[in-house]
Amino acid sequence: MTLHHPTVEELELEAVLHALSDPQRLRIVQALAGDAAPRRCGAFDAHVTKSTLTHHFRVLREAGVIRQQEAGTSRFNSLRRDDLDARFPGLLDAVLAAAPQTAVAV
Amino acid sequence: MTLHHPTVEELELEAVLHALSDPQRLRIVQALAGDAAPRRCGAFDAHVTKSTLTHHFRVLREAGVIRQQEAGTSRFNSLRRDDLDARFPGLLDAVLAAAPQTAVAV
Repeated sequence: MTLHHPTVEELELEAVLHALSDPQRLRIVQALAGDAAPRRCGAFDAHVTKSTLTHHFRVLREAGVIRQQEAGTSRFNSLRRDDLDARFPGLLDAVLAAAPQTAVAV
Repeated sequence: MTLHHPTVEELELEAVLHALSDPQRLRIVQALAGDAAPRRCGAFDAHVTKSTLTHHFRVLREAGVIRQQEAGTSRFNSLRRDDLDARFPGLLDAVLAAAPQTAVAV
């Protein structure tokens, strides 16, 4: 199965803002922003059910905030920082700078 | 009736992002960003019902994005630009810069 990702040109501001407006999703983005390599879905210490987490990852991917790549039975997630910076300059940095620092531990 | 407005310290990133994630609300914010003086609710050329527009103004006010002041039978709206800039530096500018320019006419 190929996962759909919007192109840079297809990124929509409203969808990105919506994706970032949930505390859990914001925590995921903060965690990925600090990662050097893609992270497995199972490697997030979220206090929600697996299906809720899967939903959050899908919202982030469909908005173009993260990239998900399948490898075997795992899905690896990474932040589309370059794409977001290209389409919406300064937005991700402003959000990450404003995000509650207590929320980083995911 | 006194309308509730969160203080600068009470502003929450998730609520602000959610308030800005709707196309109609984003258009209202864009319009207010270009206004020198507060604007009456009735002075927005929005293609939605009055009750929908009232809802959008309430979401924006409760998130701390706009200030609403009553004068007689009218409500005047203004952007809380200084408060937002103080709490979330760069965020509003990044959103306004990224927002579709076709949406400015409200």
